[in-house]
Amino acid sequence: MSAPGLTGACFVDGKVMQGGGATFQATDPSNGGTIGPAFADATMAVVARACEAAAAAEDEYAATSKTQRAQFLRRIASELDGLGDELLTRCHRETALPMARIASERARTKFQLECFANAVEEGSWVDARIDRADPKRQPLPKPDLRAMLAAIGPVAVFGASNFPLAYSVAGGDTASALAAGCPVVVKAHPMHPGTSELVASAILAAARACQLPLGVFSMVHGKSHEVGRALVESSAINAVGFTGSQKGGAALCRIAAARERPIPVFAEMGSVNPVFVLPLAMAQRGPAIAQAIVNSALLACGQFCTSPGMTLFCDGPDAEPFVRTLVAGVASSAPGTLVHPDICANYERAQREIAAVPGVSLLAESSGPAACEATGGRARLFVVDAESVLRTPSLREEIYGPASLLVRCKNAAAMQRVAESMSGHLTATVHGDDGDLREHAGLLRALRKCVGRIVHNGVPTGVEVCAAMQHGGPWPASSDSRFTAVGLRAMLRWARSVAWQDAPQAALPPELADGNPLGIWRTIDGLLGRA
Amino acid sequence: MSAPGLTGACFVDGKVMQGGGATFQATDPSNGGTIGPAFADATMAVVARACEAAAAAEDEYAATSKTQRAQFLRRIASELDGLGDELLTRCHRETALPMARIASERARTKFQLECFANAVEEGSWVDARIDRADPKRQPLPKPDLRAMLAAIGPVAVFGASNFPLAYSVAGGDTASALAAGCPVVVKAHPMHPGTSELVASAILAAARACQLPLGVFSMVHGKSHEVGRALVESSAINAVGFTGSQKGGAALCRIAAARERPIPVFAEMGSVNPVFVLPLAMAQRGPAIAQAIVNSALLACGQFCTSPGMTLFCDGPDAEPFVRTLVAGVASSAPGTLVHPDICANYERAQREIAAVPGVSLLAESSGPAACEATGGRARLFVVDAESVLRTPSLREEIYGPASLLVRCKNAAAMQRVAESMSGHLTATVHGDDGDLREHAGLLRALRKCVGRIVHNGVPTGVEVCAAMQHGGPWPASSDSRFTAVGLRAMLRWARSVAWQDAPQAALPPELADGNPLGIWRTIDGLLGRA
Repeated sequence: MSAPGLTGACFVDGKVMQGGGATFQATDPSNGGTIGPAFADATMAVVARACEAAAAAEDEYAATSKTQRAQFLRRIASELDGLGDELLTRCHRETALPMARIASERARTKFQLECFANAVEEGSWVDARIDRADPKRQPLPKPDLRAMLAAIGPVAVFGASNFPLAYSVAGGDTASALAAGCPVVVKAHPMHPGTSELVASAILAAARACQLPLGVFSMVHGKSHEVGRALVESSAINAVGFTGSQKGGAALCRIAAARERPIPVFAEMGSVNPVFVLPLAMAQRGPAIAQAIVNSALLACGQFCTSPGMTLFCDGPDAEPFVRTLVAGVASSAPGTLVHPDICANYERAQREIAAVPGVSLLAESSGPAACEATGGRARLFVVDAESVLRTPSLREEIYGPASLLVRCKNAAAMQRVAESMSGHLTATVHGDDGDLREHAGLLRALRKCVGRIVHNGVPTGVEVCAAMQHGGPWPASSDSRFTAVGLRAMLRWARSVAWQDAPQAALPPELADGNPLGIWRTIDGLLGRA
Repeated sequence: MSAPGLTGACFVDGKVMQGGGATFQATDPSNGGTIGPAFADATMAVVARACEAAAAAEDEYAATSKTQRAQFLRRIASELDGLGDELLTRCHRETALPMARIASERARTKFQLECFANAVEEGSWVDARIDRADPKRQPLPKPDLRAMLAAIGPVAVFGASNFPLAYSVAGGDTASALAAGCPVVVKAHPMHPGTSELVASAILAAARACQLPLGVFSMVHGKSHEVGRALVESSAINAVGFTGSQKGGAALCRIAAARERPIPVFAEMGSVNPVFVLPLAMAQRGPAIAQAIVNSALLACGQFCTSPGMTLFCDGPDAEPFVRTLVAGVASSAPGTLVHPDICANYERAQREIAAVPGVSLLAESSGPAACEATGGRARLFVVDAESVLRTPSLREEIYGPASLLVRCKNAAAMQRVAESMSGHLTATVHGDDGDLREHAGLLRALRKCVGRIVHNGVPTGVEVCAAMQHGGPWPASSDSRFTAVGLRAMLRWARSVAWQDAPQAALPPELADGNPLGIWRTIDGLLGRA
């Protein structure tokens, strides 16, 4: 069944342009069938045109006022609304995510656009700094220096499979890059091409309504990796945003580093998101913690970057009700539906590998039939001891999907050793009371070194969009731990500092002009203020 | 002649440790001879011990208070003073830089340490952000989120040949990393190993005086590239600071990207630093501008990252007095002394290549004999037309040393085309009056895209250490244009954001605690303040 409104084309420089490459169709995860229309990969020529259009729009878009840019972001949000149920329905068909989840994801996508619009409008994100001249300084006069963050130019964004709205075509990467003043070329994720087309049409409608140069946004289809490669290799592109697998993110990093002019790749590659249940908390509320973990791990069939994939606890009688609750929660769950058969195949393969590791046992799995065998995401709970985890690096790697590994630790020292053996993660969660935290300060120190966000007595899923969010951790959670993919600091990925020395007022951007015409926070001679 | 106080050893974990590898001696650039003692490259085992010591010191050093860290930085400055003339004399012998320059470079090195001490002590650089909980939010309660920048752990620093104090062992990279809370392992530059040893001893004395874990600072010698490679490949190292050639910086970037856990390299690789003389300014004060350019280009025998290597102007009668002044300035200069025969050999080779490009002519060169043929840096002024520069990418590359390329442009459009053809530079300088700037807005737009700092009516040399300095530009000027190697923002290279969700007060660092015990600027629910 085809959707009559969809063209299957790319959107390049304001034009609907047939990709010209090999065609593919979206998959309906609920039955494994295909959904029309056919979408065509962009040829290299089409990718090049999108990048050239972005470069051609760069100066004009970077010169837009903060008001214009905020209007554009808000207009994108209202155009998304304008797509109405058509967007929700198509997205549901392409991903099998529940309608309620898709509606809330649309709300989040709009909220992100609004947050960045507010940040741009307020204006202080540019970190304006002014050091005034001192002509009398000895031995040499001091010049006037002024600096601010400025857009780095066209950015490539790769849509994510697990957030078809909030981390795809108009998602956080696109919104933050447009907010920073950078044109964007999106490579749509082939698992939701129709959703991508609808969203792209909304962004272009917004660009038209705001009278922006239409090269400010293009979207190409690319089921083939060659499309992504061409995008990252384009001399017009200055940075890359990616959310997806470690393999995919690492490949883009290598391509970007091998360019004649290397560019940064901000790849958010997911993580295990370990959960540590400390003894006092275990004794007091083990079953409640277990229930929270199960709920978090099964959310969206485990398709969250922050899904808790490993739970560590000290073995003993206190832990048995906790384990029983986990087992019951997983065993009573019905299989969910993963967004694509490929994701399901990877999930099943990763689990078979885990199950084959000596010392690993299966404790529980979802019961009942899957809606579709090819996409049925059967939750599974494995158990292993800490020593095996320390011996076997693969047990410390993410299984993408609703699987969870319980790690029985002889004692807190063993638990800490596992924490110290970990590579980077987006989050770690600690269930513990004040006494636990005092007792396990070493564990907290170890976690602080390997994660971006430490959650206390909660769950890692549910990533707030706010100034204090950090969604990014040391490799392999992210390619650059100094930045975040969610929250207001995400804009910093797309800007660099530019300084002006002894510039006349006419040559300065308003952010740095005398009298602070924009009324933003600025650091003048070391003092922050906005007078 | 040997210096009796010098050991030729590495400094590892507070111990004087013989490197154990191949030995080398410093060169006296004034006569091409060698200076004792022999210095030994670090073996792989010694590099590993330095990195392990840094990792062992990481937690304790990161946990130091801002006061302790500021004291450490200030103590390093006073220990440098304590080295007295011995440091200046040794540095002069190893580099042939004038004593006055070395004394001022020591002052700058101390000033940098003081600036970072002040920034650490003030404390707001950590960009603390707090988003408070809202338990009543629908549909889900909002958690409490708090984030700040935190040290990334041990950092490797490569000393630079051209700033034996200010960008070497205790230079800007080391000072900013120590300020951010990161242990440092320095690879000393083999062109000033004795200076490096003296400075390392001062840093260690400061670490002892401040009762810090001595792994906080180590220094290894490495004339062989294998030492640098081992340092960058060490699993204990989390980031790299480098100042030097494009070839060296690019090689380190490749090594770092190929690690199992890639790490960022902040390589500052120099640039051409083009100077644009616009018509009105030319007519009004061409000769004065020419004299300023000559003075800047010949400073320290052209051994500045920001040395102006290319000057563009519109041809015509107004330009002739300008050109005559440049020619006279270069022709009347005596050859300077480069810091090492290898630098001199590279300089001569690069010039021969430039001179061989069709259309390039030599206009002037230094007169008189060099103090030493092997290190004599003969200033040279070449001239070429804009079309040749557009045709020949090699003419747009840096010649490290006192050479300068004059580019005659038929008109302003040609000048802008050259600007648009440029890769990244640290600086661009514009000589122009208000009328010039109005007329040449396109040129200024082009420059803003390819440089880190735009200098108006001045010279690019003389890099201020302040909040608004940007010393870093698009590739190949720097490996990451979003950061700076000079100025307070240099600390941001060595920190990443860490967030705490619903953490009890006891688990929070003081920067994020309720009541703002440190009195720093924080963003609470979107509002900046320090109440």
